[in-house]
Amino acid sequence: MSTREGALRIGVAGLGTVGGGLLKLLAARGARGGERPLEVVAVSARNRSRKRDVDISRYAWADDPVQLAADPNIDIFVELIGGSDGPAKRAVEVALQRGAHVVTANKALLAEHGADLARLSEKTGGQIAFEAAVGGGMPIVKAIKESLAGCDVGAIAGVLNGTCNYLLTEMEASGRSFADVLADAQRLGYAEADPTMDVGGFDAGHKIALLAAIGFGAAPDFQAVEVEGVENVTLTDIRLAGKLGYRIKLVAKAERRDGRVDVSVAPRLLAFDHPLARIDGPLNAAVVDADPVGRLTFVGRGAGEGPTASAVAADLIDLALGVRRPVFGRPIDTLSSFEPIDRAHEHGRYYLRLLVKDRPGVIAAVSDRLGRAGVSIESILQQPTPGADAVPIVLTTQSCARTALDSAVAEIGALDAMTEPPRVMRVEDKGSWV
Amino acid sequence: MSTREGALRIGVAGLGTVGGGLLKLLAARGARGGERPLEVVAVSARNRSRKRDVDISRYAWADDPVQLAADPNIDIFVELIGGSDGPAKRAVEVALQRGAHVVTANKALLAEHGADLARLSEKTGGQIAFEAAVGGGMPIVKAIKESLAGCDVGAIAGVLNGTCNYLLTEMEASGRSFADVLADAQRLGYAEADPTMDVGGFDAGHKIALLAAIGFGAAPDFQAVEVEGVENVTLTDIRLAGKLGYRIKLVAKAERRDGRVDVSVAPRLLAFDHPLARIDGPLNAAVVDADPVGRLTFVGRGAGEGPTASAVAADLIDLALGVRRPVFGRPIDTLSSFEPIDRAHEHGRYYLRLLVKDRPGVIAAVSDRLGRAGVSIESILQQPTPGADAVPIVLTTQSCARTALDSAVAEIGALDAMTEPPRVMRVEDKGSWV
Repeated sequence: MSTREGALRIGVAGLGTVGGGLLKLLAARGARGGERPLEVVAVSARNRSRKRDVDISRYAWADDPVQLAADPNIDIFVELIGGSDGPAKRAVEVALQRGAHVVTANKALLAEHGADLARLSEKTGGQIAFEAAVGGGMPIVKAIKESLAGCDVGAIAGVLNGTCNYLLTEMEASGRSFADVLADAQRLGYAEADPTMDVGGFDAGHKIALLAAIGFGAAPDFQAVEVEGVENVTLTDIRLAGKLGYRIKLVAKAERRDGRVDVSVAPRLLAFDHPLARIDGPLNAAVVDADPVGRLTFVGRGAGEGPTASAVAADLIDLALGVRRPVFGRPIDTLSSFEPIDRAHEHGRYYLRLLVKDRPGVIAAVSDRLGRAGVSIESILQQPTPGADAVPIVLTTQSCARTALDSAVAEIGALDAMTEPPRVMRVEDKGSWV
Repeated sequence: MSTREGALRIGVAGLGTVGGGLLKLLAARGARGGERPLEVVAVSARNRSRKRDVDISRYAWADDPVQLAADPNIDIFVELIGGSDGPAKRAVEVALQRGAHVVTANKALLAEHGADLARLSEKTGGQIAFEAAVGGGMPIVKAIKESLAGCDVGAIAGVLNGTCNYLLTEMEASGRSFADVLADAQRLGYAEADPTMDVGGFDAGHKIALLAAIGFGAAPDFQAVEVEGVENVTLTDIRLAGKLGYRIKLVAKAERRDGRVDVSVAPRLLAFDHPLARIDGPLNAAVVDADPVGRLTFVGRGAGEGPTASAVAADLIDLALGVRRPVFGRPIDTLSSFEPIDRAHEHGRYYLRLLVKDRPGVIAAVSDRLGRAGVSIESILQQPTPGADAVPIVLTTQSCARTALDSAVAEIGALDAMTEPPRVMRVEDKGSWV
């Protein structure tokens, strides 16, 4: 097919919701001037004849995304296949090797192989742009990489997985169990048939690894991200946390402290007035502390056709304007590495949930074990559950050493009255960051 | 003085808080690679010998900013003088005329003369970057201009003036009058000696004019912005609005409707769950609705040394990377113009505050006038004020035509019992945008 003179020729691999949305967006958007025209010339997907709400007959077809990436007629390879390895990785490598640019929504690929790909990008000049990989509906990648390029980023915290956030919000609103709400979400298409990537915290972990990389100038290293999902958050936790003034969110967090870059994902109790506490349903949000700009908050839709397609489009337009930047904001050889903080030595406030057989004696025993470890109780709540064999008791601690708490929890877990292991989550107030 | 080879040579005009902060930031930040080095070579300010917490003896000095802007040794002219006319305008013109780049925090200059300056920029290739002009601590200019470049922006609303927001927040928190709180703010340096630009809504008007320009592809035109300030918001309004479930904010707003670009600033009652209702003190926030990305929210510090200096630095780094964009996102000849919506024909919910001598008969009369105009009352509140000559009555309407309300208000204002003219403000609920 013939292309407009001077146009950047785009190949799109992956024609699911986002790929289809991108084709529609680019077809509808006229050139605004100031940039080279963008023209999709070829596409690739698993199934050519699948029914789509966009006509793909006008584009050349490639059965294999790697073949599309290798096509010298393609200036920009848009990778919407997903997965950290397999065809997505091979195709991206092939495109970069020949100096073509890559725009991708693939957080797993970049979180796990980003350093190698960035090195390849620097060698050949092929750019990698990935706004769509993290919270497509809030331009957080561009904000951290470009708008905060003059700042020192200290911490980034976000609600970055829409599926988990939807599940937690829905449990709270409907009073149904995790399993119930997940089954519904799967039926409605809000959660994958295999929900592990989302509910296990891995997707949020990939995303925060990328934000940490651009925020702190460190090579992304998913292996060094501590990941805990929401599978063990119960309706009891949500209800009792609410009575104590907290909401439970899956918080992805990265901070630079004592020269280390610490990156983690875990459910946390956030005080009602914490900036992330009110982010509901499928929304994403991120809070960034940087010097000297102060605290920034971003909220937007996290995923789906519109947000992700618009993020890809913004990256394409930047490329069409000739913008060239190091993949993670700085040359790859200057990047430091992730180095987790030793969590045993951290201090903070904690939430402890116990499920016990007989209550009165247990509270005394629990208080005793905590007190002897030097952990003070901030608030305690026991909920009447008529007819139940086991009774939940939840408490929050005052600020204490994690080592002290862990030793007390080990003793508490060994008490005869416990019907399941104690559950611990971090508590965060409005301004707290650890 | 000698400069590093390949460095972009910067001249800074205006060495107040922001200018000093910028010099400190640039001196502290090492080159991160990937961009040309940035080097401040010359400065200009009203008073060379004023005591500053940054040493300016290492920079060349210019008494006149226009002379600095004309210096062929300066690649980028940073304009931190302020004012829509006078030396700031002349200096920016001189820099652009010779093809130098301009980075500015001057919202008044761009809102009033932006189209002419953009035309000049296109002619000579000198770039104009202005992230620092709107909410320095939230990268809203870059977000709208670049991240939403693939989207159609429908509406932008923001709390964009920190001084007004501080005053309203402080009145609510302390129960003191507007005049009292303003006097304190002036003493503390939070408000200017002549507060008209802030309190009168003009500063917010300049800012929303710029956001409207980049969001809608329209030449900024401050003359077409309808501006109302916060001078007439009373403690009674704040308290009674609070009892009805609303907070009063100075809202700057731009929307595209029926092909028109409507831009306005006015105090509005926002429902507690409206995304802008909880933005307090000196914070800025903006909400953007765009297709297909959805709704985005940004929160950050609006002004001051750190936020503004970091915004200027981000613009400088973009220039050092060679980024070139049309000033308002699109070529100047393709920009449309602002065209206010005829407010008489708008529909919405309204707040009405009356100050009356004798209450019972008045409520009947007021209800009668509204009812006859077809305006239904949503809620009504009268506050006991023992010993006062006049009693406040406030009410909110259901959705109605502004023309109908205006005719009823004219009749109500003519009632004998009124001790001052009725006061009308728009009411906005969580999702409403008019």
